[in-house]
Order: sequence, then C-alpha cells, then structure tokens
Amino acid sequence: MKLLKTLAPAAALAALPSLGLAQDGPTPGINASTDSVFIFNSLLFLIGGFLVFWMAAGFAMLEAGLVRSKNVTMQLTKNMALFSLAAIFYYLIGYNLMYPLGTWMVDGVLSGVWGPGVLEAVGVTSDAADDYGYASTGSDFFFQLMFCAATASIVSGALAERIKLWPFLTFVIVLTAVIYPIQASWKWGGGFLDAMGFLDFAGSTVVHSVGGWAALAGALILGPRIGKYREGRTVPMPGSNLALATLGTFILWMGWFGFNGGSQLAMGTVGDVADISRIFANTNAAAAGGAVTALILTQVLYKKPDLTMILNGALAGLVSITAEPLTPTLGAATLIGAVGGVIVVFAVPFLDKLKIDDVVGAIPVHLFAGIWGTIAVVFTNSDASFGVQLYSILVVGVFTFVASALLWFILKSVMGIRVSEEAEINGLDTSELGMEAYPDFSKG
Amino acid sequence: MKLLKTLAPAAALAALPSLGLAQDGPTPGINASTDSVFIFNSLLFLIGGFLVFWMAAGFAMLEAGLVRSKNVTMQLTKNMALFSLAAIFYYLIGYNLMYPLGTWMVDGVLSGVWGPGVLEAVGVTSDAADDYGYASTGSDFFFQLMFCAATASIVSGALAERIKLWPFLTFVIVLTAVIYPIQASWKWGGGFLDAMGFLDFAGSTVVHSVGGWAALAGALILGPRIGKYREGRTVPMPGSNLALATLGTFILWMGWFGFNGGSQLAMGTVGDVADISRIFANTNAAAAGGAVTALILTQVLYKKPDLTMILNGALAGLVSITAEPLTPTLGAATLIGAVGGVIVVFAVPFLDKLKIDDVVGAIPVHLFAGIWGTIAVVFTNSDASFGVQLYSILVVGVFTFVASALLWFILKSVMGIRVSEEAEINGLDTSELGMEAYPDFSKG
Amino acid sequence: MKLLKTLAPAAALAALPSLGLAQDGPTPGINASTDSVFIFNSLLFLIGGFLVFWMAAGFAMLEAGLVRSKNVTMQLTKNMALFSLAAIFYYLIGYNLMYPLGTWMVDGVLSGVWGPGVLEAVGVTSDAADDYGYASTGSDFFFQLMFCAATASIVSGALAERIKLWPFLTFVIVLTAVIYPIQASWKWGGGFLDAMGFLDFAGSTVVHSVGGWAALAGALILGPRIGKYREGRTVPMPGSNLALATLGTFILWMGWFGFNGGSQLAMGTVGDVADISRIFANTNAAAAGGAVTALILTQVLYKKPDLTMILNGALAGLVSITAEPLTPTLGAATLIGAVGGVIVVFAVPFLDKLKIDDVVGAIPVHLFAGIWGTIAVVFTNSDASFGVQLYSILVVGVFTFVASALLWFILKSVMGIRVSEEAEINGLDTSELGMEAYPDFSKG
Repeated sequence: MKLLKTLAPAAALAALPSLGLAQDGPTPGINASTDSVFIFNSLLFLIGGFLVFWMAAGFAMLEAGLVRSKNVTMQLTKNMALFSLAAIFYYLIGYNLMYPLGTWMVDGVLSGVWGPGVLEAVGVTSDAADDYGYASTGSDFFFQLMFCAATASIVSGALAERIKLWPFLTFVIVLTAVIYPIQASWKWGGGFLDAMGFLDFAGSTVVHSVGGWAALAGALILGPRIGKYREGRTVPMPGSNLALATLGTFILWMGWFGFNGGSQLAMGTVGDVADISRIFANTNAAAAGGAVTALILTQVLYKKPDLTMILNGALAGLVSITAEPLTPTLGAATLIGAVGGVIVVFAVPFLDKLKIDDVVGAIPVHLFAGIWGTIAVVFTNSDASFGVQLYSILVVGVFTFVASALLWFILKSVMGIRVSEEAEINGLDTSELGMEAYPDFSKG
Repeated sequence: MKLLKTLAPAAALAALPSLGLAQDGPTPGINASTDSVFIFNSLLFLIGGFLVFWMAAGFAMLEAGLVRSKNVTMQLTKNMALFSLAAIFYYLIGYNLMYPLGTWMVDGVLSGVWGPGVLEAVGVTSDAADDYGYASTGSDFFFQLMFCAATASIVSGALAERIKLWPFLTFVIVLTAVIYPIQASWKWGGGFLDAMGFLDFAGSTVVHSVGGWAALAGALILGPRIGKYREGRTVPMPGSNLALATLGTFILWMGWFGFNGGSQLAMGTVGDVADISRIFANTNAAAAGGAVTALILTQVLYKKPDLTMILNGALAGLVSITAEPLTPTLGAATLIGAVGGVIVVFAVPFLDKLKIDDVVGAIPVHLFAGIWGTIAVVFTNSDASFGVQLYSILVVGVFTFVASALLWFILKSVMGIRVSEEAEINGLDTSELGMEAYPDFSKG
Repeated sequence: MKLLKTLAPAAALAALPSLGLAQDGPTPGINASTDSVFIFNSLLFLIGGFLVFWMAAGFAMLEAGLVRSKNVTMQLTKNMALFSLAAIFYYLIGYNLMYPLGTWMVDGVLSGVWGPGVLEAVGVTSDAADDYGYASTGSDFFFQLMFCAATASIVSGALAERIKLWPFLTFVIVLTAVIYPIQASWKWGGGFLDAMGFLDFAGSTVVHSVGGWAALAGALILGPRIGKYREGRTVPMPGSNLALATLGTFILWMGWFGFNGGSQLAMGTVGDVADISRIFANTNAAAAGGAVTALILTQVLYKKPDLTMILNGALAGLVSITAEPLTPTLGAATLIGAVGGVIVVFAVPFLDKLKIDDVVGAIPVHLFAGIWGTIAVVFTNSDASFGVQLYSILVVGVFTFVASALLWFILKSVMGIRVSEEAEINGLDTSELGMEAYPDFSKG
C-alpha cells in the first residue's frame, strides 16, 4: 500500500474545496460530501480488512491440507494461535512502532496520536473527518493488523511437521511486535526506504518476502524433516487433504482482492475507485497467469499436471503482482503472474536440492515471487528505480533474515525448537497435543 | 444492535438540515447527500447480512467437524434445513412479531407498515429515503433474518448425535417464528426491556444466550449420548474432522464482523463509520483474547493445548464482546474476550460433571459467555445498569428456558425426540438418512 | 443483469441535474455527489465480483465432495484450471465479443472503447465519471468475468470422473472466449434478444442454462461412467465428502447475493439500493424454498431426507430466481425457488432413466431450473412476454447445444475426450495425475 503520509495530500485535495465552502457557513449538503469521502475510505479498510482476515483461514486450510494427517491438529493450532497472538502484540507494540508519532502529521495537524487502544472516541461528530485525517483510525488499525498477521502465517507453513509449538509462537510474537513493524515503517511508516522512492504497493517485499525470509532462516536452523532427504533423493511426503489445500488457495485468492485493493487506501473519489477496480482485475489476472503457467509447465516437465504446483502457481502470481497491482495492463499483470508460476515450478525442486525443507512451498511463493514482484515494478511504473527496488529488497532481506536467524538461535538454545525424533515420527498431533484431526479414519 | 426506534432520531438528525434545504427548491446535490446516508445504511445491512449468513456455514462446518463421522451427514442436513426453515418462518411470522406495527413510526410517518412480503416497491424514487426511514426495509429484513437463523444454529450443535431430525426442525420453526422474535421485541422491537435501559448491542443475550437456553433445555430433556458418562467418568468422543471445525470457527469469526459491525445500524455519517471501525477492531481483539486464554489455560491445566478449547475460546470471546463491542478500548475488549476463554475452559468439564451432554460446547460458548458479555457492558458503558442487565438476562432466560422446555416436552410426548438406541450406536447417517458423509474411507 | 445500455440512461438521469449545475461553475459539493453515484456503482461491481469469484470455490468444493475419492484431485485441478483459463480468455477475446464497439455509446460519447487490457488510466480525474459512463470499466470487467467463469464451472461437475483434462480445458477456452460471449451479447450486449424484450436479470438462461446445455451435450457424447447403469438399474456412486459438498453449497448461496444483487448494475440511488435489498432477500428466500421442498419431497418419496437433494434443491432455488430476483414478493420468490426444488427431485432420477450420467446434478440444477426461472419471469414481471421468454430459451439453447456438441465431437475425434477404461476404474487421480487427494487414508 502507499504510504499514508503521501496519500493524505490527495485526500486533502479532494476534500479541500468542500472544506473551504464549509467554513463559509451552514452548507450541509457539501459537508455531507466531505463526509462521504471519509466514509468511503473507512469502508474500503473495513471490507479490505475482513477479506485479509479471511486469508488467515486460507493459510490454515492450505497448510492443514499440505501436511500429513498426523500433523494436522498441530498446524491448525498454530494458525489459530499465531493469528490471535499477532492481533494482541501488533496492538500492544507493533502498530505504534510502525507509525511512530509524527508520521501521522497532516497539514500540521496531528491526525492520529495514539497509544495502545486509543481509537476514535465513540460517536465522534463529523468534524472528525478533519481531525482524524482521511479515514477512521479504527479502520486503518483493523486493516494494518491483518497484514502483520499474514506475515506470520507465511512462516508457519514452511516449518510445519517438526517445530515445537511454543518456540514457534514466541517467534510469532517477536515477529509481529517488532520485526515486521520496524521494517514496515521504513516504507509504510514514512521511513528511509520510502524517502528513497522504494515502491511496494501492497507488500511483495514488506509482507511476503519478510515472511519468506523469516521462514527461510527457520528452515535452515530447524533442518529438514526426518527422512525427507535420503541418499541424495527427495522423498515425497504428500499432503493429506488436497481439497482443503485447494479451498485454502481459493480463500487466499479471494482475500487478495482486499489485500491489494484495500492498499489503494482511498475510495472516496472517482479516480480511487477506478484504480481499485484496475487492481482487482489485475490481481485476478496475475493469479490466473501463475496457475495456468504452473499447469502447463508441470504437464511439459513431468507429463502430469501437479495440483499443488498449480495452487502455488496461483499464489505466486498473487505475490508477484502485489508490489504493483495498479499500473500494469491486464496483459502485463497476467505475464507478471506467469513468471511467478515459473518461479514456483523451478524453485520447489531447487530448494529440495539444497535440502531446505519447506513443507508447503512458502519460500518459493512468498520470498522468491516476492522479490520478482518487487523488481517487476520497474516494468510498468516509470516512477520505480531498479536500483532502489533492489537496494530495498536487500536491506529488508538482510535485516529480516539476520533478526530472524538470531531469534531462532536464541530460541533453539533457550528452549529448543524441534520436537523429539519419536514425536516427529509419530506425528505432532498425538505426541504434542494428544488429539488427532481425523480420529475416526484408519490411516493407509 | 441498537433499537431501530431509538436510532431513527439520530439518522433523522443527520438528514434534517439537508431535508430542510431540499424543501426550498431544486438543490440536487444536497438531495444526493441525503440519499447517500440512506445508501450507506442499507449497504451496511447488506454487507453485514451476507457476513452473518456466512455464519450459517460456519456453524455447519464447526458442528460437522465436532461430531463423530457416523453423524456428519445428519448434522449437515440439520444445518441446511434449519437455516432454510428459519428463512421461511421468520419471514412468515417472526419479523412481524418482532417489530409490531407502531414501532416503525418515525416523526409521525409510518415508515415500515408491512405484512409478509411487503418490501419497498421496485424502483422507488429517492423520496423513499423519507418514506421508508433511514435504510431500506429489504436490507433490514435481510439482516434481521440472519440473526434469527443464528439463534437456531446454536441449538443444533448441542443436541447433535442423538436427536431426531423432524422434532428438531419443528423446534426450529417455533423458535424462529415465535420464541426468538417475542423476546427480541422486548429489546430490539422497543419493548419493556429496552424501555428499562437494557443494553445488548448485537445480542449476547438476545441471540446467543437465547440459543444457549434453548439448547440447555433440550440437552436436559434429551439426556446425554449413550456411553458418554460411564461409572462417573466422562468418555471423550472426539470430533471427526478438526480441520472442518477450525474452518467453521474462522468462518464464524469473519461473519462476526458483520454481526457486530452491522448492529451499529447506520454507516452514513463519520461518527457511525468510525464506530463501526471500533467495533470491527474490538470484535477481533475479543476473539483473539479468548483464543489465547484457552491456549494458555489448557497448556497450564492439562500440559497440552487443546485445539477444540482454543476454537471455543475464540467463539466465547466473540460472544462476550457482542453485548457491547463499541465502548471498550482495544485492551478492554481483549480482556472481556479473555474471560470468555476462561469460562469455556472451566464450563465444558463442569457441564460434563453435571452429565449435561453438549456435543460442541454451545452452552458454555453461547449461554455462559453470553451472560458474561451482557454483564460486562457495565464495565465500559456508563449508561448500563448492573441491575437492569441482570434482570434482563433473567427475564429472557426464564422465558426462553420455560418456553423451550415446554416445547421439548410436547415434542417428546407427541413424536419422540430421540432416535432408537440402535440408531444412535450405528450412527444417525446410516440409520436415519441412509447416507454416509465419507463413504469411501474405512473407519478406524 | 440488465443491459448496460438500457441502464445508462437511468444513471445519466440520476446524474443529470448535478451535471447541469456542475457546468455553471465551481460547485464542488454537487460534483462530489455525482462522483458518489459512480463510486457506489463501481463498489457494487467490486463487492458483487468478489462474491461471484467465491462461487468458483463453491463449485470446486461441491464437485470435489460429490465425486468419489479417487477422482477428487482431478476435479480440483479442473476447477482451478478452468477458472484461470476463463480469466485469461474472457479477457483476450470474450469481453470484447460480448460488448462490441458501439454498445457502449452513451449520449453520443463513446464511453468504453477498449481492446484487451484497456481499463481506465491510472488516477483518472473525476471527469471520468462522465467519460467512462456510470461505473468504472475495470469494475465492470471484473464483475462480467466472474459470470463467464461460472458458466464454465457448471460444465465440469456434470462430466466428472471420466473426461480427460486437456480436452475439457480446451472446451472451456472456446466456451469462455466465444460461445458464452456470443450468446450473452444477444441479451446483455444489446443484441436481438434484448431488442425483442427478453428478460433475464442475472442469467437463468444466459449463464445457467448455457452451462447446462454445454454440460448436456458433453454428457451425451461422453457417455455414462462405467458401471453407472447396469441391467436397467442405476448404481449409486455416492460422493466422497458431503461436508465439502455442503460447504460448496453454502459458498454458492453466499456468492449468489453478489450474482443477483450485483446484476442491478447500480447502487448510487435510493431506488437502486432498495432494489438490491429486495434482490438479496428474494434470492435467500428462493434458496430456502428450494431446500425445504427437496427436504420434504425426499422424506415423502423415499422416507428419508436426502442431503444431496437438499443441497441441489437450494441451488435450483437460486437458479430459478436468477432470471427475475427483483419483482417477486418474498412469498413468490420462495415459491419460485420451491418449484426449482421439485424439478431437482424429479429430474435427477429422470436423467438416470435416460442414462444421461450427470455426476453432480448440474443439468437439473442449472439447465432445467434455469429454464423454469426464465419462464417464471412472466408471473411477476408484467413487462415479460411468455413467447419472447420461450423463444429466447430456445434460441440460446439451440445455439449453445449445437455449438457445444460440435465442439465436443471435434475434440473427441482429434484428441479423444474420455480416459481409458482402466484409468477410469482406478480413478483419474492416480492414473492421470499421479496424486491422490487423501493419500493418508485407507479406502473402504
């Protein structure tokens, strides 16, 4: 999404003439129009927010479908818990770190000073449209929170089937309270990357590659699952429920309309709603491009289409378009997504060759396609500088990877991050939770 | 949600200046602004309505996931049928009972006279903004219907795995046509509880505890499942599909944004949309608080986190915040939800001790957390009176419990409410429906 | 949905007074109101669009739940692939075929000239409200695309468990690029059926029966599954996951609010939002009517309610109301849906008697109920002519059936459309894809 600060002037511009008139006397119709802009903007955050919330369910279903049945309860538990913890810690710490005091200054008016829990007062009057900026703080918080939680969801899939619950959740707390907000502030909080001209509309880098870097650090330190790489061969460990995985992908695809569309951050003008419309259409096109590419490539390479690749192809297409869903034409969006599909098909076996065990393909989808998407901005947006994009990718990557690796090491030495060999072989559901996901069915 | 009647003046107030001007002559821009308020309000009901509709799917998935595989088809059938019957009987009888003629009077204009099926005429002109009140009747009906149906959904989970289909559906008809609307009219129809100052924003009592009381009456009269309580011990009967149950919880969580947010009943002013934003953020915080509390408590008490408790903790958090999602700060909302999580963790084994067999935990989640949420209003809303809240809980509780118990007794004596012992042991799917939910898989 | 062209004047009318004033000088409040109409209309398409997108997931889950477990991966693959291909080919060819140059003329201004990929420019000014018509082209494209994809989804269910992947996908490409758009242009592109007065609000004929005719042609040419009809008996082949099928139905039901509601094509006036509200309520009523009817009928006919019939009953109710969701009263909508439920209960065994093997019941639901719904328009909309409705059903039917049959024949002779007998018996998942949907579970 664009920086709030840079957006505000546009919103102010739209509001200005009415405001001018409003000060001349009681011209209620015109006031109402100013209010409409505020309402439309807030409504965009609310709709976008519940759609991005829905992505939490998408990640849960995707991951539950791609792990083996003996680890499904654990994967579901992690997803429920990580979202809930993200909600609490982003509120307590993260949000304020991300938008430190001062970045909310609009026209000299402090538009959003707040500590934890300071939303608009109940029943604010329409003057709030001026006092609080261009949309309600509550709607902005709700929307931003969902992005932070999505970052954490990305990590859980890669490290599935072997990581202990509590160290993982501890990582999530630090990620959502500190790591994510700090780097997000560099771009969306008006920090130095934003000042340099870094462009990352809805977060190919800020959200997806950050999740991917954190996952990569974890996967390296955690090591692969027992038996995954044997005598130079990669042993397939097929997911237990492809219907769930497909459902998860459809959910994520749907949620992405809110993710990218909401990142327009404004809906109160003709231009904004037309832009949101472009974004919806482009987001859909990129997902389709990624899915079809993976379909064709797996048919050509392996003679059989591979559903999990098609699902990840769609997701990679979505990640790829996320850094710039607005400026591409529909054709360009389809192609940008298609490259995402190519990346997934080649990166999944490549990671296996490196013995980096990413259970659901989160690193190819979110990290590699995230990098690609961030670079691809330069092809359709003339304001983008290749150097700045690359520099920003590196800065965010180094920071996130180093901070994550450090944290994983600390967790490893303090509490241990990996379950016992026996627990892993028996499955985390019975050994760690004492609860099977599908207890009525015999395992094959 | 607030009472329509009490809300209407606020909406009228917002509209008044424009209306005044409108009568002076052809000032279309100002008319359009008045229209915008009407459109925003109706749109809120439509979006809120489809989100609450979605909760019907959530209940279906939650319950299908928490029953044993031999009863899944029956549980799905009940959920599809109960929603459909609620739609028909709330339309035929309930809606008119709930908002009897006269409560729709606004400024002396009868704004919503209607019998079954009388919505706005097709293609009404913008004058309708005056004639029909502050939002379209169709959108209000759509939204209200979903609340009524949710009440019925609550009952089906508690009584699963042993109740006969048709007596259950007969109960649903009476519940949605008569019991729910009568007590709802006491608060939301402008009845005596509302006049006393009872506060129940989106229905911790009016919806959730009512569903819970009806379920409790049913569970007591129906008795526990065969083999559930043996020699003083509670025999665990684990749900057959925790992925489904988790999906159902996510769906309910998502739908709750519409449930609570839509209950603001207006979105056409800056104050209203800011309030809705608070509500969205608070609703999410409460769910997170409930889930995390259940996670920690089950870890501490049982040394292993319990996913079904975490799911029910999130739901209890949601129920807890429903009576007052607007006035709490984010921190208070989290804590209110957290208490809901505590309630669930202790109430589930407590009910088992009493040999009250509630298959999915509906009574702890909807009744106990609903009572807590209704009381918790006094902590954040200074307009609330502890006495009135308690009195209202009792009045609604006694009415619903007595009416439900009476109805269950009548159904028991007239048609029998429990399947045969053999049918219960074999599972309701084969014995009652002749159709398995997962016929291709061997049972363990 | 109504024709864009015929709608535009209404939108223009709503906008006119403001426009008139706007030309007199800087009256920003009034401009803003005009903009609001544009924003509301575009927002309707965006919300409607993501809800109809969601139906793609609904079809996928419904079909994955109703096929046997050995064909689930294939069914999921087809659904992912067909949606993605529809997105690409409707964009490349279909959209322009459907709305050829000239039908976008509004008041002599060419409002939407475009080839592939020409959406509004990024950041258009508010003048675009005039230049681009009454809503953003991007939102319209997004919305229309989802209807086209839904048509293709209908086909995949009927032909499941025996059709080869690539011929099926080739059919989808031609269907979404050519067949669907050509016939849709006859009504929604301002073609001859529209000129005659054919009424099909959201596409009982244009979408659903077209999908049904294409499926029927395919089912006839493909032939039934091995073992389905033996010695004059129909062998039941129960679906492998009724929870998924129920989820799919709930998803489709939810998406239908966008399907029918969005087809109002405008939300910027009181009349439009009141109409959309009617449509939401009627759509829900029809679904409920269909489900309850199937519940009662299967109880009466077979002594046991049949969940798959109830699901299809709800869907048939939805299809039935789609041609005219606006003019019926709630009671009439319930009855129109109920007839859809009757159709399903009798048509499913009827097709089996004819040895037409429709795996999920797509032909009864979408074709037969689609025809019924198109005829039922005459009962509630006085503008409808029985003759014109019937003529249009026939014209669209003959065109689609002949074109589809021709295409299926060509595909059959060129590449073969049916998998080998061995592959069919072993299941398409292992034989064609080498990937099971539920590999961890023993098959019963």
